[in-house]
Amino acid sequence: MEFNYLKLHRSGSIWTIELNRPEVFNALNPGLSHEIREVAEAAQISDLVRVLVITGSGKAFCSGADLKAGVTDPDLGNVLRATYNPMILALRGLNKPVIGAINGVAAGAGCSLALACDYLIAKEGAYFSELFIQIGLAMDAGSTAFLMQSVGYHKAFELASTGNRVSAVEAKEIGFVAEVISEDTWQGRVDALAKEFSERPTLAIGLMKQALQKAQNQDLANVLESEAKGQSIAGRSADFSEGVMSFMQKRAPKFTGK
Amino acid sequence: MEFNYLKLHRSGSIWTIELNRPEVFNALNPGLSHEIREVAEAAQISDLVRVLVITGSGKAFCSGADLKAGVTDPDLGNVLRATYNPMILALRGLNKPVIGAINGVAAGAGCSLALACDYLIAKEGAYFSELFIQIGLAMDAGSTAFLMQSVGYHKAFELASTGNRVSAVEAKEIGFVAEVISEDTWQGRVDALAKEFSERPTLAIGLMKQALQKAQNQDLANVLESEAKGQSIAGRSADFSEGVMSFMQKRAPKFTGK
Amino acid sequence: MEFNYLKLHRSGSIWTIELNRPEVFNALNPGLSHEIREVAEAAQISDLVRVLVITGSGKAFCSGADLKAGVTDPDLGNVLRATYNPMILALRGLNKPVIGAINGVAAGAGCSLALACDYLIAKEGAYFSELFIQIGLAMDAGSTAFLMQSVGYHKAFELASTGNRVSAVEAKEIGFVAEVISEDTWQGRVDALAKEFSERPTLAIGLMKQALQKAQNQDLANVLESEAKGQSIAGRSADFSEGVMSFMQKRAPKFTGK
Repeated sequence: MEFNYLKLHRSGSIWTIELNRPEVFNALNPGLSHEIREVAEAAQISDLVRVLVITGSGKAFCSGADLKAGVTDPDLGNVLRATYNPMILALRGLNKPVIGAINGVAAGAGCSLALACDYLIAKEGAYFSELFIQIGLAMDAGSTAFLMQSVGYHKAFELASTGNRVSAVEAKEIGFVAEVISEDTWQGRVDALAKEFSERPTLAIGLMKQALQKAQNQDLANVLESEAKGQSIAGRSADFSEGVMSFMQKRAPKFTGK
Repeated sequence: MEFNYLKLHRSGSIWTIELNRPEVFNALNPGLSHEIREVAEAAQISDLVRVLVITGSGKAFCSGADLKAGVTDPDLGNVLRATYNPMILALRGLNKPVIGAINGVAAGAGCSLALACDYLIAKEGAYFSELFIQIGLAMDAGSTAFLMQSVGYHKAFELASTGNRVSAVEAKEIGFVAEVISEDTWQGRVDALAKEFSERPTLAIGLMKQALQKAQNQDLANVLESEAKGQSIAGRSADFSEGVMSFMQKRAPKFTGK
Repeated sequence: MEFNYLKLHRSGSIWTIELNRPEVFNALNPGLSHEIREVAEAAQISDLVRVLVITGSGKAFCSGADLKAGVTDPDLGNVLRATYNPMILALRGLNKPVIGAINGVAAGAGCSLALACDYLIAKEGAYFSELFIQIGLAMDAGSTAFLMQSVGYHKAFELASTGNRVSAVEAKEIGFVAEVISEDTWQGRVDALAKEFSERPTLAIGLMKQALQKAQNQDLANVLESEAKGQSIAGRSADFSEGVMSFMQKRAPKFTGK
């Protein structure tokens, strides 16, 4: 795979996407969206990959749509169907954990991209803004779904209708950021976190990721059945055997994601 | 339009409903419910209106059902179908922002009416109470949906089963109130807030309001498609042209809601 | 009813399940799951019962699946369908309030059992952990649904993928615990709380419990109709008559749950 708009770093079972358009604060153009999707789809079918990390090059995480790139179709809905929507579906459909390492501003579709990640770690000074409203647009790239799932209607409406900045600390308080890290210790913690995830039973994590998403619009009986289907698979995994054995032997487990 | 139970203040593109039964703490009778619905429906079809504000006259926001008004039907379900339910559907169906200016107690169906608003600003000293339980009833007028959407099952069950008061400050902490304002600065901030909303791209806000509500019970693929449909409309709006142009020209945008 | 793995305490209209396998921190075996379900189903049809309390014997609330009990079927999905799923459906389907008196660790399926309760009170020092991941499994016994309903996707993913401990205090902050109580005052508060619930209009509470759950995956119009159906029933109850009468007479109501 060769890329024009991102760098893909591979280290053991960890793949890291570095959005690489620092001169425009990593704004999304159709090419970059397509490349993110390509990486997510390659990660899905590769036995080697256990964790995907997304971060930005330079000061920003992602400033959203590249307004200067021009639009290919006057119907923005069609643009979304061709660019962001497949990217977002590939990330949330990826049956492996996706860590958002939010190194700076995540705005507009860049905020959506951040929220599409499963586990968010943010640098002090990073912030989130649904700034679509500032150019007269509605939210896209999934923020509608992700805010409803994580912060609920009233907070979602507030963020959407004002475009107000949410600091890393506030994002942790309202629940979509798991860790806020100082500039000094940032890279060390991102690396350690990715390593921690890569040593977990990532098959089971992938199953939980799917089940949690399905639970958004299903009743309890259906969610319990989703859990049962997932546990049939997890219960036959090498990771479960290892998990039980290591528990009995009182030693640390060695999970392979299989 | 003439009203018996509310005052309708019109100021530019801002309409303000003032519940006007201060002698009974603005309790809801069928007439008041009907009048609120009438205003919401008129706001929906008027090109002039961009923001609807709801507040109460006197010390209370709304004390809920007027128990002394008597019931017209022994089947309370039928009463709801004829009164609150159309009012609530009109408010949440209104494709314009609805600001709840919660000036005092919001109890029972008055709490539901507050939660039906999209953006809540509350006066210090105001409080919320799902006090249905105190007279042996279940929640109505939409609180069931609104609490699930904003605070989740366990907090919703707690508030519903105890009727405990939620102060303005706690309401902000748990996420359904956006701003808590002191008595001194209350009216100034309410006016400024309404003006701010009236100068935003209210067409896009209306589209996001619809999409957020649909996201409650849809999967990600469907929400992304909702966003695309909305963005087709927003992308053809005068507000989007103005938003992009003002961004390029580094000046403040002038949105018209069209 | 006779039980091998729990004690059932009956005091007036309050039934208390005490998980009674303190030697294994009240781990769940198929027999215990079955007995919990049996009690929930008996409580459902008994006119006498108005509140169900679940707590643990000894230091733990419930440590989850009893790994040493062995599995009866290599397909863990089938095990869930036969054991936990009917237990969880019986608890959430019970049209009476279920208080979780979380006296100590609630881990794995024990965490799910805690979250299946409607109103959680936790002892200082108690904690919650979705530790399925530590043995290579996905969440089961309903945690997938309960976390999505109470803390949203990102927090749910964090708890599920790390197994991190959530202290009683943090659980209150993120919303699924209503009260944190010190060791000293624990039993007194649990008893008082159960008594408070047993004197509330439990019929209306049961109706709200059902409606809140349905609201998880329904649109507003349907939730309003659920509320109307519930209020038809509540509006004909003795508790509603008593509630209105006591309100008019300015005295404390005496509810019977009928």
